[in-house]
Amino acid sequence: MPAKGVLVAETADVVIAGGGVIGTAIAWRAAAAGLDVVLVDPDHGDAASLVAAGMLAPVSEALFGEGALLRINLLAVRRFPSFAAELEDVTGRHVGLRREGTLAVAYDPGDYAALMRLTAFRRSAGLDAEERDSRACRQLESFLTPDVHGGVLFAGDWSVDNRRYAAALREAMAAAKVRIVRDRVTGALVRDGRARGVRLADGGSIDSAVVVIAAGCWSGAVAGLPGTVRAAVRPVKGQLLRLRHPEGMAPVITHTIRATVRGTDIYLVPRADGEMIVGATQEERGPDRTVTAGAVHDLLHDAMSVLPVTSELILAETCAGLRPGTPDNGPIVGGFGVDGLLLATGHYRNGILMSPVTADAIVAGLTGQRPAAEWGPFSPRRFIAGPADGD
Amino acid sequence: MPAKGVLVAETADVVIAGGGVIGTAIAWRAAAAGLDVVLVDPDHGDAASLVAAGMLAPVSEALFGEGALLRINLLAVRRFPSFAAELEDVTGRHVGLRREGTLAVAYDPGDYAALMRLTAFRRSAGLDAEERDSRACRQLESFLTPDVHGGVLFAGDWSVDNRRYAAALREAMAAAKVRIVRDRVTGALVRDGRARGVRLADGGSIDSAVVVIAAGCWSGAVAGLPGTVRAAVRPVKGQLLRLRHPEGMAPVITHTIRATVRGTDIYLVPRADGEMIVGATQEERGPDRTVTAGAVHDLLHDAMSVLPVTSELILAETCAGLRPGTPDNGPIVGGFGVDGLLLATGHYRNGILMSPVTADAIVAGLTGQRPAAEWGPFSPRRFIAGPADGD
Repeated sequence: MPAKGVLVAETADVVIAGGGVIGTAIAWRAAAAGLDVVLVDPDHGDAASLVAAGMLAPVSEALFGEGALLRINLLAVRRFPSFAAELEDVTGRHVGLRREGTLAVAYDPGDYAALMRLTAFRRSAGLDAEERDSRACRQLESFLTPDVHGGVLFAGDWSVDNRRYAAALREAMAAAKVRIVRDRVTGALVRDGRARGVRLADGGSIDSAVVVIAAGCWSGAVAGLPGTVRAAVRPVKGQLLRLRHPEGMAPVITHTIRATVRGTDIYLVPRADGEMIVGATQEERGPDRTVTAGAVHDLLHDAMSVLPVTSELILAETCAGLRPGTPDNGPIVGGFGVDGLLLATGHYRNGILMSPVTADAIVAGLTGQRPAAEWGPFSPRRFIAGPADGD
Repeated sequence: MPAKGVLVAETADVVIAGGGVIGTAIAWRAAAAGLDVVLVDPDHGDAASLVAAGMLAPVSEALFGEGALLRINLLAVRRFPSFAAELEDVTGRHVGLRREGTLAVAYDPGDYAALMRLTAFRRSAGLDAEERDSRACRQLESFLTPDVHGGVLFAGDWSVDNRRYAAALREAMAAAKVRIVRDRVTGALVRDGRARGVRLADGGSIDSAVVVIAAGCWSGAVAGLPGTVRAAVRPVKGQLLRLRHPEGMAPVITHTIRATVRGTDIYLVPRADGEMIVGATQEERGPDRTVTAGAVHDLLHDAMSVLPVTSELILAETCAGLRPGTPDNGPIVGGFGVDGLLLATGHYRNGILMSPVTADAIVAGLTGQRPAAEWGPFSPRRFIAGPADGD
């Protein structure tokens, strides 16, 4: 068991279970709105948010037919800059926002056909997309292999350094006087149809009229939630690599590069501090967070296929995280009929991107305002009332 | 600068520069022979000995035409078991000796032709070698790919867990009352043709009539040695991987497997505790110890080519070490005309294997005995007097 926080809170206006970017963003905004907030998390270093690339690319993460998800992602990407700016103001930290856009490249003709279908979808959503032939791709990113069949520049995509962003959120939260308890929420306490607080793994409890479950893929382990809601969240393992440039080598890429290499998707995301992220696997392996030889091989192989110079970079870190996946790939945000008991989980591959709008939605609910209409399809009720009606 | 040892020695019978397996083995045996020994090393965790596979395979590391090196390696492999047994007796630790032998496999017909040439060479040295066809290879190691062209079982090869071995040596050395100084030897002090001690990086010195330079690839940085000897030692970078079996998976190999995959040599070495080592690159990059994406990719790729199940293993560690290479691939052991100033370096890929016989040779010199005749060609004098006369 990790050490407990020195400050054990016994009552609060709001208790939040989970200290990833979702829980932390909610905690910061709720405290900034004047609420007395306690955040419970066994270990800040364990969140999926720390194993992420930080792409702020709304469409490329939405699949065909997921129109509701696309709309919430578009809301999220519009909101991100102002949220990040306020966060940087409050903390004096840079979160590593980059606005160079994404260059999507296709390795072979089949990959290119798939990219063209995605491009049509993105354009239908109103996003800029400029087709580039192989030579024009290399004019943007000179280290790309000439074997790349072609690509598309999505100039509107941004990215953020997920670790800097998470650290800034933690600092903003602490500055807003959120109390942090190092423990695990094992259950939501409910009486007479109302939330009353949470039970902790160490046997204690915290009284609170509002409980927000933001425990990522572990949210289903919280007692007191409906069984069908608990069953709706599952871990989806993602492995990624953090590469570093050797001393004296200039950054090898400036855009985020998304590549499809013979049907497999990878991304390469540059960081202001000279790192390059290569990700990511998507694996249904339950709560397994091991780094496997096969995944590291495949990520390196595909990265080197499109950007051969990758082989010269330093392999600084290999890591694995557990995204909170859901049956319809959409987040689970809001209440479901128990007063004061809210969920903010299931963000799958979009937790970083959606953290500002998720905090907005939860805090709107807590302060008597109406969340944005885009949230409608993502209520927990869809896992109680029947199938999603989002699209 | 690492912290200094609490005990600063000002005089000793013998000062040893370098705390890898060579320096540590010499220190233990010299102290056991009754000498007052000080070992100087800035950081025990930094030695090439800790980045090694621990194969005790005398011939496969000797190239055609390196007959003198083969003879010293054969002496070394005969000596290893008794040395290890004494070490285990003294410390009560297991060093992870394995006697299953090496299965050398060839991926394609060209690789097989090269293996057959090596096999003839090994047989000429009197070693057992049993040819096995692809099917018979898989009877020994069932996870080998059926694509393996064929192989040879070298039943006489052993291996040792290099980290357990190094830890046991350190413990034996400490039990023998060797004093350890955490500093770096910058120069050997010589007056009137005799060694007088060493100068340390912190500005201090230690007086001693015998100085042994066992600083691996850093031995050339020690002032007071002849320039041509200093120039003879260079770092040869080796990267390797430590893989681990997922919980519940039985060990995938029992023999050391050496594979040639389209001309590239790799080895896979099983450990008693469920690890599997995959190594190693050989790179001329100066003192660079970074782990590169390309090397990790290539090691994984070649390992998965011969043993596809490797992809399921956990990538527990990637590491890089600097072997002390020499122009003729042979070690540099003994004196060169300055009384009391000795070298024990240049062991290249065979430091673990040669550590017992190197300790024997140095301690023999210190106690008035004659080192084994096999050492003749490996005197430092060959880099002063002219070209090697070893073969």
